[in-house]
Amino acid sequence: MNEPMHVEQYAMFELNLTGTAAGNPYADVELSATFTHTATGRTIEVGGFYRGEGRYGVRFMPVGTGAWTYETHATDPALAGHAGAIAVDPASEGNHGRVLPARDVAKGAARDAYGPELAYRFSYEDGTDYQPYGTTCYAWTNQAPDVQDRTVETLAHAPFNKIRMCVFPKFYDFNTADPAMFAYPGSMAEGFDHTRFNEPFFENLDRRIAQLRDLGIEADVILLHPYDKPEWGFSKMTKAEDEFYLKYMARRYGAYRNIWWSLANEYDLLPWKSLEDWRDYARVVMGNDAFGHLRSIHNCIPIYDYNEPWCTHCSIQRVDVTRTTECVADWRKAYGKPVVCDEPGYEGNIYWGWGNLTGEELTRRFWEGAMRGGYVTHGETFIDKGEQVWWAHGGELHGESPARIAFMRKVFADVPLDATPLDASLAPGDVWPVASPLPEGTALTPTLEKGIQYWDVPVLRSGTDFQLVYLGWFRPAYREFPLPAGARYTVDVIDTWNMTVETLPGVYEGKVRVELGRQYMAVRIRKVA
Amino acid sequence: MNEPMHVEQYAMFELNLTGTAAGNPYADVELSATFTHTATGRTIEVGGFYRGEGRYGVRFMPVGTGAWTYETHATDPALAGHAGAIAVDPASEGNHGRVLPARDVAKGAARDAYGPELAYRFSYEDGTDYQPYGTTCYAWTNQAPDVQDRTVETLAHAPFNKIRMCVFPKFYDFNTADPAMFAYPGSMAEGFDHTRFNEPFFENLDRRIAQLRDLGIEADVILLHPYDKPEWGFSKMTKAEDEFYLKYMARRYGAYRNIWWSLANEYDLLPWKSLEDWRDYARVVMGNDAFGHLRSIHNCIPIYDYNEPWCTHCSIQRVDVTRTTECVADWRKAYGKPVVCDEPGYEGNIYWGWGNLTGEELTRRFWEGAMRGGYVTHGETFIDKGEQVWWAHGGELHGESPARIAFMRKVFADVPLDATPLDASLAPGDVWPVASPLPEGTALTPTLEKGIQYWDVPVLRSGTDFQLVYLGWFRPAYREFPLPAGARYTVDVIDTWNMTVETLPGVYEGKVRVELGRQYMAVRIRKVA
Repeated sequence: MNEPMHVEQYAMFELNLTGTAAGNPYADVELSATFTHTATGRTIEVGGFYRGEGRYGVRFMPVGTGAWTYETHATDPALAGHAGAIAVDPASEGNHGRVLPARDVAKGAARDAYGPELAYRFSYEDGTDYQPYGTTCYAWTNQAPDVQDRTVETLAHAPFNKIRMCVFPKFYDFNTADPAMFAYPGSMAEGFDHTRFNEPFFENLDRRIAQLRDLGIEADVILLHPYDKPEWGFSKMTKAEDEFYLKYMARRYGAYRNIWWSLANEYDLLPWKSLEDWRDYARVVMGNDAFGHLRSIHNCIPIYDYNEPWCTHCSIQRVDVTRTTECVADWRKAYGKPVVCDEPGYEGNIYWGWGNLTGEELTRRFWEGAMRGGYVTHGETFIDKGEQVWWAHGGELHGESPARIAFMRKVFADVPLDATPLDASLAPGDVWPVASPLPEGTALTPTLEKGIQYWDVPVLRSGTDFQLVYLGWFRPAYREFPLPAGARYTVDVIDTWNMTVETLPGVYEGKVRVELGRQYMAVRIRKVA
Repeated sequence: MNEPMHVEQYAMFELNLTGTAAGNPYADVELSATFTHTATGRTIEVGGFYRGEGRYGVRFMPVGTGAWTYETHATDPALAGHAGAIAVDPASEGNHGRVLPARDVAKGAARDAYGPELAYRFSYEDGTDYQPYGTTCYAWTNQAPDVQDRTVETLAHAPFNKIRMCVFPKFYDFNTADPAMFAYPGSMAEGFDHTRFNEPFFENLDRRIAQLRDLGIEADVILLHPYDKPEWGFSKMTKAEDEFYLKYMARRYGAYRNIWWSLANEYDLLPWKSLEDWRDYARVVMGNDAFGHLRSIHNCIPIYDYNEPWCTHCSIQRVDVTRTTECVADWRKAYGKPVVCDEPGYEGNIYWGWGNLTGEELTRRFWEGAMRGGYVTHGETFIDKGEQVWWAHGGELHGESPARIAFMRKVFADVPLDATPLDASLAPGDVWPVASPLPEGTALTPTLEKGIQYWDVPVLRSGTDFQLVYLGWFRPAYREFPLPAGARYTVDVIDTWNMTVETLPGVYEGKVRVELGRQYMAVRIRKVA
């Protein structure tokens, strides 16, 4: 046996084999490999895939350190019986493995840290907390190579750790150019062969997903979408063709630790695919992704039933004139899973209301969602800043929200993991007393007596240690905050727009009056140890 | 018979009589007068009221021109059998009589002008359209006289034609001073006599309501409210005492043409009064107001059921973090009556979210409500601009919204009375075609195919003659608007914040592209005659 190849934990080990090129190996040849962890005996069966010209691949993500062995199985004898060993070294800094639901992966102290928030959180598989701050570049891998390079460069300096991206090209307003490469062999004039894949297209996708991985960015890959044109036809393939493609994607990309699966964008704009189709498609993905990556689906109007067991989290679009990420509280109750608001409107100036928000407003929606225990995704749709519109093409960012999102990430990195959104209707029984009551003799309904302190603003709270209040577009001159008895507190005034944190001098007991006077302020109150 | 007294139509004719002062005439003496219109034989029975010191009043608002006669009836012989004649001259300019539901009062062409909007509109009784642009000064008539004078002076130059005002004083944050006069004889130390009234208090109220009338401002009088303190106790009177008071109010103020009745502010904060109580109170008001003024009631949290027949219109509070006046469409459907959003939040900087909006946001809420066929009421709660806070005390206005509300009034004065809010889900069948469709081959659900043009912005439309679109906080670089075939249109770009109207050069057919690029814009499109 040769010296085993060294691979980093959660990195990708790729087995490249050569076999038959006869017939249609994409469809005809079945290849897999069994990987066995020597220390534990754990085995992982990984499906392979064809790359054209007799070349085959099996991609494996080592989930445990130490020695692994593998052996291939195949319908083509040339591919079967290949065996070897891998030595898996500990993950290097910044490599935390897959992002998964915290309740599926966090253990021990890391799990306990989430407290009541466990169900609504993501975690890397090494126990490191993960909070998605996504952006959206639907068709960035279908642009000219230099545009793709510029997108990667922009992402390297942006605050985003997730990107929503399609596999297939996009046909829509400001998206009418045909891409240079397609996923399938063939042409727009003569049609595409949906039984084979176009290797250069996928090699580009491989490379781009690897670049995202190296930047610490999760690739939230949208497998199907409706922004299609008849000469392309990728939204109108048969169910068998869809499943053939999904199997290929799951096998080829499942070993990238930064992959998430979004079955579709605006699934309801593909009404010729039924809910049963989507469930079947989820099964195909789950059956061929050996590494169980996150799975969801995204709506246009009707929100998908994320209670379906295959969904690991919510990926919700809610574009309303007024209420978007404020709905997170409802969605947490409805689905009991992490809530990602993947389209709460974009910063920009496109003619539709989903994409002509100010930077202030998109930043506000980020905060409103996070304060209710959800996650929010960015997008940018300026139509007069050059050829590329970020939301579709990538390129450069022009808006004012990314800097504020970077600032917000820093603030939320310091929020205790178990900080729970306060339900104002349940507030009174708790240790932060209702303060600023109306004067003596003022009548209040029981509802108001219970919740009056925080009926108007969202609150995140961890026991008596921590409280964060976000005031959004309100701009009180000042506000008083009651403090739990028997402890001293420090108070920070956070300007979420101007990106400043001002710590009030001294420590406070009983209550604290905080001068505010501007919009988009937050107040952070922490117990002195 | 003496020469008849000349009175202007819809003005107040007051009959002052002297009778017994023995016992408690407030409770013991019943006085009324029958007024008969000579030309038509119509009679109106009007209840009188006691003013103290043997003085009695009967107040009559002549609803028809020409000769009227009257005769009194009373349990005190000194008050009975007084007869006389009035010559009613036509109303002078600016005197349009009472405001009433348009469907109750508009006739002929004036009625037809409302088209499908009839149910949701107010009209003066002479057929002149009335659109409420209200403000809020809850306790202004309970302030020092000079403050009251300053309030009147401010109102003389403000854009408001309705004011929400309480009879009783207010005890609440920033409202802790005792008034100089109370509605009842007695004192805070020794208690008040709820069987008698304090004439100077009501003479002041008379004068203030008359001043409002002379400024063309409707007095939306709040009869009961919860902002009370034990030493006052006006929110905790017995039902009999409440009804005694309501009868007095209805008789004393029913002849002011500018009176509206609001049974209560935040009725749900008076939980010791039942829904049946409120219905009984409405009956008392209706039974003693000879002139059938508008009647409603205002909520804190649960919205009253305005389907109750005694309610002439909705007077709704909706303070939500996000959606307020956008709900007008729902309320029109629920109640089928004019919708007044009487508390959509205030401009200011008080510490609660109902009163720390920017001028931009309150102005936006005005537009959002009006674009959906409702009416919105102003309030101002700056707590650092001097002793008075407008929403409670009156005094001066400091905010940025009043000037914008004045501008908005001018814009809406030119909106056709039958302009109807577009229900985007019903848009397609109509003459303004769905425009800017997604590119060929893009899949759309039936919902989107029907409504996509205007799913994101409210639209008011009158046939093919007129369309007003309001873009609120959205800020598209430009937007295209389809125009009905076979006609030419002029286009105005309205900046609702900077208060400008820019008419695009020329006339347009088919469609028009309008450059926008800022928030709070509206586009008005009118057919060329």
